[in-house]
Amino acid sequence: MVPQIRWSHSHSGGYVFHNPGHYDVQPAYKSDGWNTDPWTLVEDAQGRLLGRGSTDDKAPVISWLFVIEAHQKLGLDFPVNLKMCFEGMEESGSEGLDDIIHQEAKAYFKDVDCVCISDNYWLGTNKPCLTYGLRGVSYFHLKVTGPGKDLHSGVFGGTVHEPMTDLIHLMGKLVTPDGKILVPGIMDDVAPVTEAENSLYQGLDFTLNDIYGATESKTTIFDTEREVLMARWRFPSLSLHGVEGAFYNPGDKTVIPAKVIGKFSIRSVPNQEPEKITQLVKDHINAEFAKLNSKNTIDIACSHGGKCWVADVNHWNFVAAANAVQRVFNAKPDYTREGGSIPVTLTFQDALQKNVLLLPMGRSDDGAHSTNEKIDKFNFIEGIKLLSTYLHEVSAQS
Amino acid sequence: MVPQIRWSHSHSGGYVFHNPGHYDVQPAYKSDGWNTDPWTLVEDAQGRLLGRGSTDDKAPVISWLFVIEAHQKLGLDFPVNLKMCFEGMEESGSEGLDDIIHQEAKAYFKDVDCVCISDNYWLGTNKPCLTYGLRGVSYFHLKVTGPGKDLHSGVFGGTVHEPMTDLIHLMGKLVTPDGKILVPGIMDDVAPVTEAENSLYQGLDFTLNDIYGATESKTTIFDTEREVLMARWRFPSLSLHGVEGAFYNPGDKTVIPAKVIGKFSIRSVPNQEPEKITQLVKDHINAEFAKLNSKNTIDIACSHGGKCWVADVNHWNFVAAANAVQRVFNAKPDYTREGGSIPVTLTFQDALQKNVLLLPMGRSDDGAHSTNEKIDKFNFIEGIKLLSTYLHEVSAQS
Ligand SMILES: [Zn+2]
Ligand SMILES: [Zn+2]
Ligand SMILES: [Zn+2]
Ligand SMILES: [Zn+2]
Repeated sequence: MVPQIRWSHSHSGGYVFHNPGHYDVQPAYKSDGWNTDPWTLVEDAQGRLLGRGSTDDKAPVISWLFVIEAHQKLGLDFPVNLKMCFEGMEESGSEGLDDIIHQEAKAYFKDVDCVCISDNYWLGTNKPCLTYGLRGVSYFHLKVTGPGKDLHSGVFGGTVHEPMTDLIHLMGKLVTPDGKILVPGIMDDVAPVTEAENSLYQGLDFTLNDIYGATESKTTIFDTEREVLMARWRFPSLSLHGVEGAFYNPGDKTVIPAKVIGKFSIRSVPNQEPEKITQLVKDHINAEFAKLNSKNTIDIACSHGGKCWVADVNHWNFVAAANAVQRVFNAKPDYTREGGSIPVTLTFQDALQKNVLLLPMGRSDDGAHSTNEKIDKFNFIEGIKLLSTYLHEVSAQS
Repeated sequence: MVPQIRWSHSHSGGYVFHNPGHYDVQPAYKSDGWNTDPWTLVEDAQGRLLGRGSTDDKAPVISWLFVIEAHQKLGLDFPVNLKMCFEGMEESGSEGLDDIIHQEAKAYFKDVDCVCISDNYWLGTNKPCLTYGLRGVSYFHLKVTGPGKDLHSGVFGGTVHEPMTDLIHLMGKLVTPDGKILVPGIMDDVAPVTEAENSLYQGLDFTLNDIYGATESKTTIFDTEREVLMARWRFPSLSLHGVEGAFYNPGDKTVIPAKVIGKFSIRSVPNQEPEKITQLVKDHINAEFAKLNSKNTIDIACSHGGKCWVADVNHWNFVAAANAVQRVFNAKPDYTREGGSIPVTLTFQDALQKNVLLLPMGRSDDGAHSTNEKIDKFNFIEGIKLLSTYLHEVSAQS
């Protein structure tokens, strides 16, 4: 599952790099709405390379190999030692990957000095970025159990405590319509915004039109780019995803469901810990349920708790990458986070205890996982230069 | 769709009866859990007649024919004129029935003096009943629309007004966990409980254990039989049935649904009118939504509004039936209502403007629509006597 390509040249003294990526891709059918065969790489008139996996994650993966090949063909000394890890199950949950990383932490990965992953995207379409943070996610199942079987609302409506009513009331105590999380204590561990951090939000390649476009609506809670991005990147959020066990089809059905399970998740940020989040949520739900005076019973459980991640942007790994962006693009990079999680990032961080840099190659509009996925030839070519230059910049820092 | 069997003997002077019933049945497969072939009538050791449709509604329908046959064979004068209407699509929504009833109101049905329908059940298992009321039902779809497409909660959680959050808050404003409807004005038209009505709740064949058994739980809101039955029969209730468009499968999915539709219904009682209920619900939802300050949009619509029904238990039709119960069972009948709706009842009431009596034959545990549906031979035989005696009692009242 984790094929290894070892760079046979051993660089003495320099840093050892680890560059994971994945060669597996999402499914794709032309009938999904592709304009071209998704499994044939096509270059269109605007210089876009179209095909499934073009940007996620084949271009970055192959670029590392081009960097090596270029050094070989030019007879140049390779600036660092490289350890690669190409994954083939990233799009199917990376089964087994965590285990092998932890297992190899003191073996294959033992002399790694830093990690660089290229498997995310520029914030916009104009400017490279270095990504230094991800939110964690804790997923909850809130089960309310009442009658022993589903009931008919004609016969039993008004006579029993309906699990769905209890659940709706409890879910309504989790978050306000403007996104404020109602779980007491949940914000206590959220790191305050520092001046240095604030300055990273200046001049980002992002406008409100970007989020209007991405959501196909003007339903944003905030009216400034900074607030939108901070809400996405560095503050927690709580989303209500749905209800299992209730009526969900079109049309009318007069059922009183016997057991319903509300699904919601909390996106977490430094310095929140999943264990504490779970405890706060449980305490809150139990306290709110007690107020309902219901004869039903509840069960609240965290089905998945993934930690957030943040890296030190002043680490030499990030400094080298910023220098490389300056040299290749003649620009300062944006410093970005992502609202979602990329679990392998955290696994490498935890297992190797080294600085992890996310150095994306594609643009925000590349359409990873979507139809007509592409990478612009510009991003691909300049991206190869960036990766190569980055390795030389790192070497210069050592 | 409405086969007609006319009784050729024309009774001069007496009442004209209309006795609708249905000969179609629910589907049934032995694999559903039947102990015997559902399509073969089997009498078991306890004298129960097992088979699909045995109690719903074949025994009552055929009983009217046995009553006629008995009079013929005994050479007895038939006490009334009879107009029958046997339906064959009751279990599939009675398509077309309303139209034909209204169409024939001044034709086939024009000289009908009263209606007697035998298509419901005793309140318990020991005592016959006369049923004089049904609740109406108004079904609502509350749609909240936000982003143009489903979003990922990692990327967008915290940045947009989530339709699911708005919906949960609105649904939480509809009913309390102990069944109190929160729509302002909704109780204004509910008829007060009279002394006479109160007395009908004395000595009913119903205990709390019956509802514990039926719900397979002890999740009742009330602790007395009278309160339970009043909540089921003569007070409105509001049930939250589910959400269309949200995540409903087992497992975890981190989706922010773009559009969600909450489903709920209100069971209505005299003197509530569906049009007014709809208006009150719309006004309430719109007022509550305005408080949310959300950028999403809502749409609230009533997909079905069926009126409640109540009959005068002092009408000669009910008096005759009570006398018949006394003669056949040597007991006073229970006077019951049903929490659900039997739309044809209301249609006959509306179209013919005559007293409608529901005179059940089977017991509450007969399992209509369920596996191992049965009617007890006792109920069947005594039920035929009851129907016959009832016709003679009516004749005596004229
Ligand atoms: Zn990827
Ligand atoms: Zn992917
Ligand atoms: Zn029936
Ligand atoms: Zn039926």
